[in-house]
Amino acid sequence: IQSKLPHIGTTIFTVMSKLATDESAINLSQGFPGFGADPILLELVGNYTREGYNQYAPMAGISELRTALAEKTRITQGYYPSPEHEVTIVSGATEAIFCAVSALVRKDDEVIVLEPAYDSYEPAITLNGGIPVYVSLNSADFSVDWEKVKSAITSKTRAIMVNSPHNPSGFVWSQSDLDTLEELIRDREIYVISDEVYEHITFDGLRHLSLGGHSGLRNRSFVCGSFGKTFHVTGWKIGYCIAPAALTVEFRKVHQYVTFSTVTPIQYALAEYLKISDRYLSIPGFYQKKRDLFAEGLAETGLKLISSHGSFFQLASYGHLSQKSDRILAVEMTKILKVACIPISVFYSNQQDDKIIRFCFAKTDQQLLEAIKRLGELN
Amino acid sequence: IQSKLPHIGTTIFTVMSKLATDESAINLSQGFPGFGADPILLELVGNYTREGYNQYAPMAGISELRTALAEKTRITQGYYPSPEHEVTIVSGATEAIFCAVSALVRKDDEVIVLEPAYDSYEPAITLNGGIPVYVSLNSADFSVDWEKVKSAITSKTRAIMVNSPHNPSGFVWSQSDLDTLEELIRDREIYVISDEVYEHITFDGLRHLSLGGHSGLRNRSFVCGSFGKTFHVTGWKIGYCIAPAALTVEFRKVHQYVTFSTVTPIQYALAEYLKISDRYLSIPGFYQKKRDLFAEGLAETGLKLISSHGSFFQLASYGHLSQKSDRILAVEMTKILKVACIPISVFYSNQQDDKIIRFCFAKTDQQLLEAIKRLGELN
Ligand SMILES: CSCCC(=O)C(=O)O
Ligand SMILES: CSCCC(=O)C(=O)O
Repeated sequence: IQSKLPHIGTTIFTVMSKLATDESAINLSQGFPGFGADPILLELVGNYTREGYNQYAPMAGISELRTALAEKTRITQGYYPSPEHEVTIVSGATEAIFCAVSALVRKDDEVIVLEPAYDSYEPAITLNGGIPVYVSLNSADFSVDWEKVKSAITSKTRAIMVNSPHNPSGFVWSQSDLDTLEELIRDREIYVISDEVYEHITFDGLRHLSLGGHSGLRNRSFVCGSFGKTFHVTGWKIGYCIAPAALTVEFRKVHQYVTFSTVTPIQYALAEYLKISDRYLSIPGFYQKKRDLFAEGLAETGLKLISSHGSFFQLASYGHLSQKSDRILAVEMTKILKVACIPISVFYSNQQDDKIIRFCFAKTDQQLLEAIKRLGELN
Repeated sequence: IQSKLPHIGTTIFTVMSKLATDESAINLSQGFPGFGADPILLELVGNYTREGYNQYAPMAGISELRTALAEKTRITQGYYPSPEHEVTIVSGATEAIFCAVSALVRKDDEVIVLEPAYDSYEPAITLNGGIPVYVSLNSADFSVDWEKVKSAITSKTRAIMVNSPHNPSGFVWSQSDLDTLEELIRDREIYVISDEVYEHITFDGLRHLSLGGHSGLRNRSFVCGSFGKTFHVTGWKIGYCIAPAALTVEFRKVHQYVTFSTVTPIQYALAEYLKISDRYLSIPGFYQKKRDLFAEGLAETGLKLISSHGSFFQLASYGHLSQKSDRILAVEMTKILKVACIPISVFYSNQQDDKIIRFCFAKTDQQLLEAIKRLGELN
């Protein structure tokens, strides 16, 4: 058959994770924790499964989890989305993004994508007949060039994809970023799909500002989040979308026919866990220690670091050491030094190669220290 | 925003299940078991979760589960799909159907839908810009009128949706149905999306014939199945798609960006369970007893039964007792007699009301007997 996604191959995360396994390398490529989750949470999943919570959950998610999430949102972002009308539980943030795009985007609609960008945005847009319009982030620190965004807006602009804390750079949006975005779209029918999966991972006292918490943006944003990223269980594939009621109605129409509902025993486990534990409040400190440990060691290998302010990623540029393409360097690093990373050219529509690689530092200190030791061979 | 699915409301399954709960009725509407799964399987989920199998599974599913499924397919259908190139694990059969349709269907492609039909087919088709072309099943027994199917084929026909054992009727396709379909599409570029979620539920010695097991159909079919339906755990939202390598490549491109992967600990649990247990072989006998128990009692209430040969659904027509619309009857039955069912007009594109309701008999014998007792008040 003729492909509807002819330009799409296997995602880089699969490619590099497989290579890491084949090469017995330390896998700092795909973004997932190398340590376990809270045993209390794991025990709850076993309990609810054993006790028979194994049939379809309601399509929008069990109300206990929607309520617990709304409560957490009140605590961390200062607003309380309606569990009934504004919160939907889905099978991972990837599904949330896919459904939000599918609910919004029609043939020939333009969607602004700030790049480098996570690789699922573009196929979601094009499968819906939309046209991604790329705007480059500032190369020095991956902040937004708002003048460029403004120039990219046309009468066909339907949505903008937002991602803070940013993957792969770790840039975190400020209040002024949110305010500027709001001003730009205020008088137009432009919606925002906000990928906030690293909402709980920010450093140096920075706080994640959800678009849902912004009075001017809230009414036109789909906030997409991930329980997997927050609770160190990326394989559970459970996330959420928070959006105003009118948008949630459309979002759910799509979700209803994409996956219908999400793993029941895990929903109950997370709902109970959120009630009894606020351990998510300790995530910034937990990850900041890892970032510091890793960045300090990495700097000594000769790589040039680009400061990470959030997410569990650290960018490093190597152009002063080698002129190899980032893909070749990433493969060689995996094969020879036995440390896998992600070449960030894959995050650009034009595969632009700035000689920057991404490391995931959501690993045990031991893994991080061993990786640094191996990377010492770089120069 | 302007809805992309303006005609879509909340699915009937949600509506009736909610009404059943609100009315404390016996819920014979939405199709899910009223009894538990094998405790051994449940224990395995707890174990794998506790032992830390909680990060991303490979995008196509863990190879242990793909291999176990291929092996089961060899045992039950006599062919062995390649675990690497032809089997993909997804977040439920609904996702499998959605991804197959999305991989195939483009703007203005026609897709033949035999109705009454499960309610997720149409939105999947229209979200991809396709046009559903409806062909009615024979009203007496819900067999296929192949002449009608033939007349519906045009140069724009891209795919046909197949569903055997059939929801809601329980009709099961014969070898001759498969052969006729093969003949019809042999010289055209028409693909088949085959919803086989009730593959293990057939009665009276009938055997489910997978399209994957048919030499002429296999090379153009997406076979969509459900572990949830087979193992009495519909809430786990785990299913699969078996398709030839060239179709699987396109299927996975979509799956990769719709949900990416599926719950890891549950994949490991199912893979191990399939290795140690062939209890699925006892499913036909198990459900046949329930069908017999339920049908016998139901016949005595005055409803006219339409024989169910597979699936866990029983249709009953009531036109000789009442001229109420099937929706009103279903609601009243839930509120007054405290038994919930599904009005089957919702399975028709034109909402055609033949005064037929659907009962799910995947319930405990006690629930079924109590439901029959309550339905005794009908006449
Ligand atoms: C879905 S695999 C990718 C995980 C991730 O978010 C990343 O590595 O960027
Ligand atoms: C996804 S809810 C519907 C379950 C089902 O297959 C049915 O009741 O027909």
